[in-house]
Amino acid sequence: MSFEKLIRPSSVAVVGASAKTGKVGNSLLDNLVSGGFAGKIYAINPGETTILGMPCFKSVLDVQDTIDLAVLVVKRETVVPVLHECATKGIGSVIIITAGFGETDEEGKQLQREITQLARQHHMTIVGPNCLGLLNPWVKLNASFGQAVGEPGHVALVSQSGALITAVQDWAQSNMLGFSVVASVGNKAAMDEVDFLENLRDDPNTKVIAAYLEDISRGQEFMRIAEEVGRKKPVVILKSGRTQAGAKAASSHTGSLAGADAAYTCAFDRTGVIRAESIEHLFDIAMAFAYQPLPAGERIAVVTNAGGPGIMMSDAIEMSGLTMAQLGSATEKTLAAFLPPAASTHNPVDVLGDAGGDRYGQTLEVLFTDSSVDGIIVILTPQKMTDSAGTARAIVDMARKYPTKPVFGCFMGSAMVADGVRILRENHIPQYSVPERAARSMMELANYHRFRSRTPRSVERFAVNKNPVLRIFKTYRALGLHEIGEIDAKNIMAAYNFVLPPGTLAGTAEEAARFADQIGYPLAMKISSPDILHKSDVGGVRIGLASRSAVMDAFDLMMLRVGRKMPQAQIRGVLLEKMVTEGREVILGMKKDPQFGPMLMFGLGGIFVEVLKDVTFALAPVTEEECYAMIERTRTYKLLRGARGERAVDIGAIVENLRHMSQLSIDFPQIEEIDINPLKVGYEGDGAVVVDARIIIGKEKR
Amino acid sequence: MSFEKLIRPSSVAVVGASAKTGKVGNSLLDNLVSGGFAGKIYAINPGETTILGMPCFKSVLDVQDTIDLAVLVVKRETVVPVLHECATKGIGSVIIITAGFGETDEEGKQLQREITQLARQHHMTIVGPNCLGLLNPWVKLNASFGQAVGEPGHVALVSQSGALITAVQDWAQSNMLGFSVVASVGNKAAMDEVDFLENLRDDPNTKVIAAYLEDISRGQEFMRIAEEVGRKKPVVILKSGRTQAGAKAASSHTGSLAGADAAYTCAFDRTGVIRAESIEHLFDIAMAFAYQPLPAGERIAVVTNAGGPGIMMSDAIEMSGLTMAQLGSATEKTLAAFLPPAASTHNPVDVLGDAGGDRYGQTLEVLFTDSSVDGIIVILTPQKMTDSAGTARAIVDMARKYPTKPVFGCFMGSAMVADGVRILRENHIPQYSVPERAARSMMELANYHRFRSRTPRSVERFAVNKNPVLRIFKTYRALGLHEIGEIDAKNIMAAYNFVLPPGTLAGTAEEAARFADQIGYPLAMKISSPDILHKSDVGGVRIGLASRSAVMDAFDLMMLRVGRKMPQAQIRGVLLEKMVTEGREVILGMKKDPQFGPMLMFGLGGIFVEVLKDVTFALAPVTEEECYAMIERTRTYKLLRGARGERAVDIGAIVENLRHMSQLSIDFPQIEEIDINPLKVGYEGDGAVVVDARIIIGKEKR
Repeated sequence: MSFEKLIRPSSVAVVGASAKTGKVGNSLLDNLVSGGFAGKIYAINPGETTILGMPCFKSVLDVQDTIDLAVLVVKRETVVPVLHECATKGIGSVIIITAGFGETDEEGKQLQREITQLARQHHMTIVGPNCLGLLNPWVKLNASFGQAVGEPGHVALVSQSGALITAVQDWAQSNMLGFSVVASVGNKAAMDEVDFLENLRDDPNTKVIAAYLEDISRGQEFMRIAEEVGRKKPVVILKSGRTQAGAKAASSHTGSLAGADAAYTCAFDRTGVIRAESIEHLFDIAMAFAYQPLPAGERIAVVTNAGGPGIMMSDAIEMSGLTMAQLGSATEKTLAAFLPPAASTHNPVDVLGDAGGDRYGQTLEVLFTDSSVDGIIVILTPQKMTDSAGTARAIVDMARKYPTKPVFGCFMGSAMVADGVRILRENHIPQYSVPERAARSMMELANYHRFRSRTPRSVERFAVNKNPVLRIFKTYRALGLHEIGEIDAKNIMAAYNFVLPPGTLAGTAEEAARFADQIGYPLAMKISSPDILHKSDVGGVRIGLASRSAVMDAFDLMMLRVGRKMPQAQIRGVLLEKMVTEGREVILGMKKDPQFGPMLMFGLGGIFVEVLKDVTFALAPVTEEECYAMIERTRTYKLLRGARGERAVDIGAIVENLRHMSQLSIDFPQIEEIDINPLKVGYEGDGAVVVDARIIIGKEKR
Repeated sequence: MSFEKLIRPSSVAVVGASAKTGKVGNSLLDNLVSGGFAGKIYAINPGETTILGMPCFKSVLDVQDTIDLAVLVVKRETVVPVLHECATKGIGSVIIITAGFGETDEEGKQLQREITQLARQHHMTIVGPNCLGLLNPWVKLNASFGQAVGEPGHVALVSQSGALITAVQDWAQSNMLGFSVVASVGNKAAMDEVDFLENLRDDPNTKVIAAYLEDISRGQEFMRIAEEVGRKKPVVILKSGRTQAGAKAASSHTGSLAGADAAYTCAFDRTGVIRAESIEHLFDIAMAFAYQPLPAGERIAVVTNAGGPGIMMSDAIEMSGLTMAQLGSATEKTLAAFLPPAASTHNPVDVLGDAGGDRYGQTLEVLFTDSSVDGIIVILTPQKMTDSAGTARAIVDMARKYPTKPVFGCFMGSAMVADGVRILRENHIPQYSVPERAARSMMELANYHRFRSRTPRSVERFAVNKNPVLRIFKTYRALGLHEIGEIDAKNIMAAYNFVLPPGTLAGTAEEAARFADQIGYPLAMKISSPDILHKSDVGGVRIGLASRSAVMDAFDLMMLRVGRKMPQAQIRGVLLEKMVTEGREVILGMKKDPQFGPMLMFGLGGIFVEVLKDVTFALAPVTEEECYAMIERTRTYKLLRGARGERAVDIGAIVENLRHMSQLSIDFPQIEEIDINPLKVGYEGDGAVVVDARIIIGKEKR
């Protein structure tokens, strides 16, 4: 409820209001008053008596009425004492404009921690510190020191950059795009993007949530909430700091360390968050979602009054992943009946340079009623007979008559098409100045429709035996070791249902020979020692041992050579394993992302990972479907399916192993890295075995 | 000289001028007069006496003075007769606005061919037909039925879409971008993009040539001229019809069949033509080239008054391929001396939200004089103390003081930054509304600088023996055959210096055995028959023959089986070849593009081509450098260099063979396709041999 009072308060107190023009405390109060906010406004400042003609209170405690929202523009050292007063007064929502906290010195960081604590303690909804404020145009609330409150609309904007908000609002105004809520999150001492997402899910005025973020601090919660919100309304995020240079600039700006960009991509993919590539793109997408219904499919029809732009649009549609609709022959016949002979009745439909609004309107009606068309883009270039206003009105009329298919305008030009563009914007038809931006925005609508049609993801758990794993971790922690070598890693994996090659540990040459006869040939022999991680470097690996005598020779030689190279190493014996000769080698991995937790990796072994870097990622826990997607997304996927007459390998077995790895990573947060290299995958139905593996655990138990 | 008179005529006749408002012949005359053209204007129309207060002539022949340029807006059937009159009158330049030619019916196509012929016969410079016309703002010439003549500037615009011209001019006007020449090329009956490129090269008003094209009809000439022009001034082309849907829309619009998009990419790459991805991109790049000097390198400094946009710009710069400049410690010290303590003196330099024009100016001066900075982008977001006009003036002043480094503005917002944006535009500082567009345009400047610094390409020829090739082609043509199988293909290649495995043709098992002993083992045996192209399908290939007896057995079996499967085939014997066992298999290919001629292909053999589609292309003739680039551009290049401890293969030998294939393709235009699969490449210094090859020749000699 305190969020409701944050964005729709009945009364607002400005603590640190100032009579001095130019001061933030003055702008803020002035913005509140002149924005036309209908609720009560209180100016608080112990050093003033009246400000802007209003009586000034010494403290929030001096106000008789209840206060829903306090906006703090006091000095940084006064923030915490004022928060205490707010708590006493029972104020549930606070916006802290004041800067000088986590983004500066140690003292600031300490003060910020106190803010966080106070918010928890008193269940207060605190925005900031170090932010621009918050606006809600629907109730004319301008609790910011930015510009005017703007027009109400259906886009919620959440931004980690205050300066960007002003720029975006300025653009929005010139594009007649309205907002439901605009929030500057600042240092996120209490309310962060996750809280805003969660609360905006149920805001009736918000149709689409757009955000600019430099980091996401609670990765796991973000994913849970974003997915939930995404099923109800689209979430579009511009996340900066993608490159090394960008991340460096971000960390010097916000002081926070962002996770890997690949992890953000995984998190967004999973939760259906639309990743904006630029602020322009964010804007383009938000407009489309705010104004138009979702297309049922990907078949787009184009109407144009010029050939060239029609070709460009066809390119843009195909390149975006959508398809140019194949118009039915009935449609083409109907079009041919009223279009001039030189017109093209194929898609893109060219209504010719002398088309007026009527001809556009008639054509649109035909396309809106064609069931092979899922969305429409209307191109207009300024020509001799062009009537941009009439055409815009025709689009608006048709969009009203057929409200279930999305339609965009792509009026190209500036002053010559301004009338039409204005009419489109006033009537909530998204208008893009170039084909590429229109096509791409339409694609985002179609993609989101597909995302929302998917069944909700569900992660199935396997029955496992955690005890051996716990025991091994305990031993390693006791020894202060963090790298778990092959044998123990395989014991852990065995407990988690991974399939391992038949194998055993042998202490003498004779024992090795006996075991070898039991297991069968060919065999691999690997030295077993907690002190030796890179076994092949010390002559501790032999493969292809095909006979009893070869096994005995190999044992003696290995002991001799390893003993020479690592005389201090404690040797437990050798691991003998049946070799898997058929199939393909793949690599499974896991590395923990600081923000989003365990990130799984898949790739084909050898050159495909090392040279082609052909790997894919997903965040744990993964669903079966996501595991298949990881595999199918590699460029080398066709090799697994059996390209060039070869047999297909057991892709299902790879999926099973990815799922085991996912569960292991989730069950044991102390695992930092898992490396299964290779997993040998047999032909279809033959399963897969872990040939070599390694696990790294964290320095402390988490 | 006639091009000079086309764009700077002293006198213009409008043939088909009309007194009726709304008619194209009226708009055109009106545009000429009201545009303020200073030369003489003649109205020609046998059916009128005065138009717009001017006396009207019956024919150009009735005009006493010389006429430099005739603009034809007559009916299509009158065009050719009028052209004859123009020729008689000695008019060197003609623009044909009239439509209804190549883009319509057979009669139109025939008329267009007559126009082409007349242009050649009388050495006339003819633009069109079916075009919007031509404008030259420098002499206020508006010989079009489009909008106003606009401001003079340094961008030449050549467009295959007339409608697009009007849209672009409209944008340009609102962005204060001026043009040197604007030409609508229409159906290109005579003057095409190549002619315009060639002629605009020496136009002193043109700094950059921008073009929108749907096809390029003279590919070879285009490449020759574009490269020559590109060394003098940048050429930026938006080529549409890239996707299948786009190409379909283009061919139904223009009636022409464009070549493969990959061929266009090759042609642009080779000639340094900058490929615009959209009309917005074309515009962005043209503005950068028209206004700014080229950066000497790729190190870009950023000044910003807000952290978030600074991060976005860092991302955009790195993603574009440029690098964020590492500011020298002296620079950072100088900046720290006057910037507030909270400012960031690292790149991106954050001058903080309260920065005015002075602080921006001071910072810019430091960056302009830092030798580790090649270009500068200035971000401004509207904030409380922001002075967009003052900041813009500071940028303008510094750009004037240090005119050798490019500087862009990235003022974000709309009305709130409008004053600054206007000042930037008036003073020729490119201004981009978002970081991504600014960074990308800067990248194009840097790329062009690199292109221009390269030594001109030169293709070296090998001494070859054409006679055997001619003989083989003659035989195949006489037989009406087009596919040249392995043996003859190898004979052709031998004449062109390709290295072939030692081999010979054997007619009997005994002969085969004798030859085998001479050549050495292991051997491959392949059936030789002009009737069998897919040898392995009929059991006509055996490899790995390691002994005399194996060779004899293989011969007899092959004859038996091939005889059964293809009893009609004329068998010449078997080809015995020494097998190359070491090294890697690569594929070299050539396919003729209808526009640009022989296009060479390179890729690693097997899965790399078939599954990963990891191939690169280049247009013949290629330079040695381009061959290396073809190889280095594959994703699998590292494999050739010897990844994972393997030895490197002989990349120089691949290059040699690509060059041989290039020369063969150029010397014999009748070759449609060459397929060398595989070329076996040995380790470094060991060379490469053609293992299998196939050539396809055209149905007629060209």
